[in-house]
Amino acid sequence: MTALPTAPRPVDPGHVSFDRMWAELAPVGRHAATGGYRRFAWTSEDGTLREWFVAEAARRGLDVVTDRVGNLWAWRGDPDAAAAAGTPGLVLGSHLDSVPDGGAFDGPLGVVSSFAAFDQLDAAGFQPDRPLGIACFGDEEGARFGIACAGSRLLTGAMTSERGLALTDADGTTMADAMRAGGHDPAVVGRDEETLRRIGTFLELHVEQGRALGDPGHPAEGAVAVGSSIWPHGRWRFDLEGRADHAGTTRLEDRDDPMLIAAEVIQQARASAQSHGCVATVGKLRVLPNGVNAIPSLVQTWLDARGADARAVRNTVSHLASTVGRTAIEESWTDATDFDAPLVRRLSELLDGAPVLATGAGHDAGILATAGVRTGMLFVRNPTGISHSPDEHAETDDCHAGVDALARVVEDLAGEPA
Amino acid sequence: MTALPTAPRPVDPGHVSFDRMWAELAPVGRHAATGGYRRFAWTSEDGTLREWFVAEAARRGLDVVTDRVGNLWAWRGDPDAAAAAGTPGLVLGSHLDSVPDGGAFDGPLGVVSSFAAFDQLDAAGFQPDRPLGIACFGDEEGARFGIACAGSRLLTGAMTSERGLALTDADGTTMADAMRAGGHDPAVVGRDEETLRRIGTFLELHVEQGRALGDPGHPAEGAVAVGSSIWPHGRWRFDLEGRADHAGTTRLEDRDDPMLIAAEVIQQARASAQSHGCVATVGKLRVLPNGVNAIPSLVQTWLDARGADARAVRNTVSHLASTVGRTAIEESWTDATDFDAPLVRRLSELLDGAPVLATGAGHDAGILATAGVRTGMLFVRNPTGISHSPDEHAETDDCHAGVDALARVVEDLAGEPA
Repeated sequence: MTALPTAPRPVDPGHVSFDRMWAELAPVGRHAATGGYRRFAWTSEDGTLREWFVAEAARRGLDVVTDRVGNLWAWRGDPDAAAAAGTPGLVLGSHLDSVPDGGAFDGPLGVVSSFAAFDQLDAAGFQPDRPLGIACFGDEEGARFGIACAGSRLLTGAMTSERGLALTDADGTTMADAMRAGGHDPAVVGRDEETLRRIGTFLELHVEQGRALGDPGHPAEGAVAVGSSIWPHGRWRFDLEGRADHAGTTRLEDRDDPMLIAAEVIQQARASAQSHGCVATVGKLRVLPNGVNAIPSLVQTWLDARGADARAVRNTVSHLASTVGRTAIEESWTDATDFDAPLVRRLSELLDGAPVLATGAGHDAGILATAGVRTGMLFVRNPTGISHSPDEHAETDDCHAGVDALARVVEDLAGEPA
Repeated sequence: MTALPTAPRPVDPGHVSFDRMWAELAPVGRHAATGGYRRFAWTSEDGTLREWFVAEAARRGLDVVTDRVGNLWAWRGDPDAAAAAGTPGLVLGSHLDSVPDGGAFDGPLGVVSSFAAFDQLDAAGFQPDRPLGIACFGDEEGARFGIACAGSRLLTGAMTSERGLALTDADGTTMADAMRAGGHDPAVVGRDEETLRRIGTFLELHVEQGRALGDPGHPAEGAVAVGSSIWPHGRWRFDLEGRADHAGTTRLEDRDDPMLIAAEVIQQARASAQSHGCVATVGKLRVLPNGVNAIPSLVQTWLDARGADARAVRNTVSHLASTVGRTAIEESWTDATDFDAPLVRRLSELLDGAPVLATGAGHDAGILATAGVRTGMLFVRNPTGISHSPDEHAETDDCHAGVDALARVVEDLAGEPA
């Protein structure tokens, strides 16, 4: 028996444009040695990504607006008139920046899928009943200035402009100076009512960062899930001070070596998280002077802690701090965030009963939900669960399924009543 | 009773020039925030220090020669003719580079004191019986490329040019490229017979890096001591690999987090040193990607270990490596170095019975001694013992005593026979 030639797969315009955009973004900010991405806020790579967003919007005739904070919004229709008429826009989107040596999907998948969903709907002749937008949030990862979701926090006022603009990167550059260098005027930064008024609903599609969809043993199935909530999470810093001294000539008993305390923080963070049913991570250190033959004068030790229960997360940190006898300086804290429950149910129904998942990762969607915006999330399957790593991956078919899901949701939420 | 006005102190020309030179060097490479020095090999600060050295030599009519490696030599007299005649030169000197955020004294004290001793001898009309030189070794601290005493190691062939030139700094710049940027041709780097032939005796004056002279309870007394030997010492690196992952979404049991192993290395290094009667220090770490919300993919952990007994130092490291189950990569190793014993006795006698001390710090003098050069060291009192720190200090009177000691030694070792 001879196998019949398989029929060519139907060419979906959203899938085609997804593949094109994905290939275009692949080289931007990619580090040759690690294969990971280094796309940090207000750098030249960030500028390249912003230009790309503006060009994609222009290609589709969308109007691009930069909000007070520097986030980008591409609109079809008049969101101000619609907001005044009581039918504010439906906005898709995510972010384009990365953690240091991050993967290709965390952020860009949501932005690219949004444009692709627009293309699929356009090809189908879809006419929305309200303005449609695509958002590109700035500085979601906080890789440069230390505060995650800085763009959405400043937009909603969850972080004041005074605090945000004064944040400094590792070279001592303030966010205000970095913005100026990136072509944005820091003087206008602050909660942006005009922008917020335009958003009736915000939907963020994101690569899954765990293995709920990818784990064969897990009850969740399918390429796409619906987000229900974001775990409470926070960042803390221990400033461990000691006395710089010569590594060869200072007796062990004469030393005041903060590296030993840092080691204790690393180990006790894990132990405390384990006993409180949370996760805790020391992923970033800063050692001064960081010389092989110099006992350090300072070891700054950052802690990331999260869990389903806010009290357990806080207890993880306070137990750690008391065990090592040092102060944990809180850099950020975000309470548990529930997405709009009726929206969550509707999304799952629309997507043929897609699984509903909580997540340990923070997102701009969470910041908007906290600020009172009707918000939901979609997750695309990640077969290994690996994220914040060059190995982060999603299959192309699953990405295309994400585009289809977004288009279907837009059709339902912003379609003319039947 | 009225106190008589104290007589003005005699103005010693060596002390005067010491003070002038010290004030001139004070601002070069000083970091405003820490108050420490950042004078790294083949940087612009290093270039400024080299220009300063050349200008001081010119001021005294000394001939400056750059050797194949880039170390600077200022000569009075013809060292080649003298070497041919069997009376090679007497060379003083040290280095001008620093560890990150180092003190002002480690290195520069020896160079400045050498020039000042020349001035004191000139003022006294001293006529040497052989050429006198002052050496300024490059890259003694290894702060940029990781190998201490790189200048003297390359000069003597203790490190091959292939290995040295291929070393990279934190930005991936090779030593060869850094030399080229600093105006030195890497093609000529290698063991330099011509330079070595000129050195009959090498004497390095250095700030003490322990408290043997400064400790009131210690039997050693006085402002200046004579070095007897350098402890065996080495540097090792642990490349701790793990799997980058998202700090919020990866279950503790799914993690491969190298930061936890680094913590173990830090703690076990201390414990192993303690039980072997040595010192061991983890002063430098490199974390990739070093993001607050990313489990690291790599934590490079450097170890510095030293002690009076070579076998105990090696056992400290092998015990540590087997305890943590990881490989310690040896970056450098220097056996115990004894300075020339008759010279040590003579120096102590000349300096009115100055105490004789071993040290845990490596020096270019040790590299030259290992290469067969007749070598000695003088140490100037450090009241706190603190070194490799902005707090490193020596009293001005003690520095002047060091100048006097150097001049006295030169008078004896290179004076016309009475």
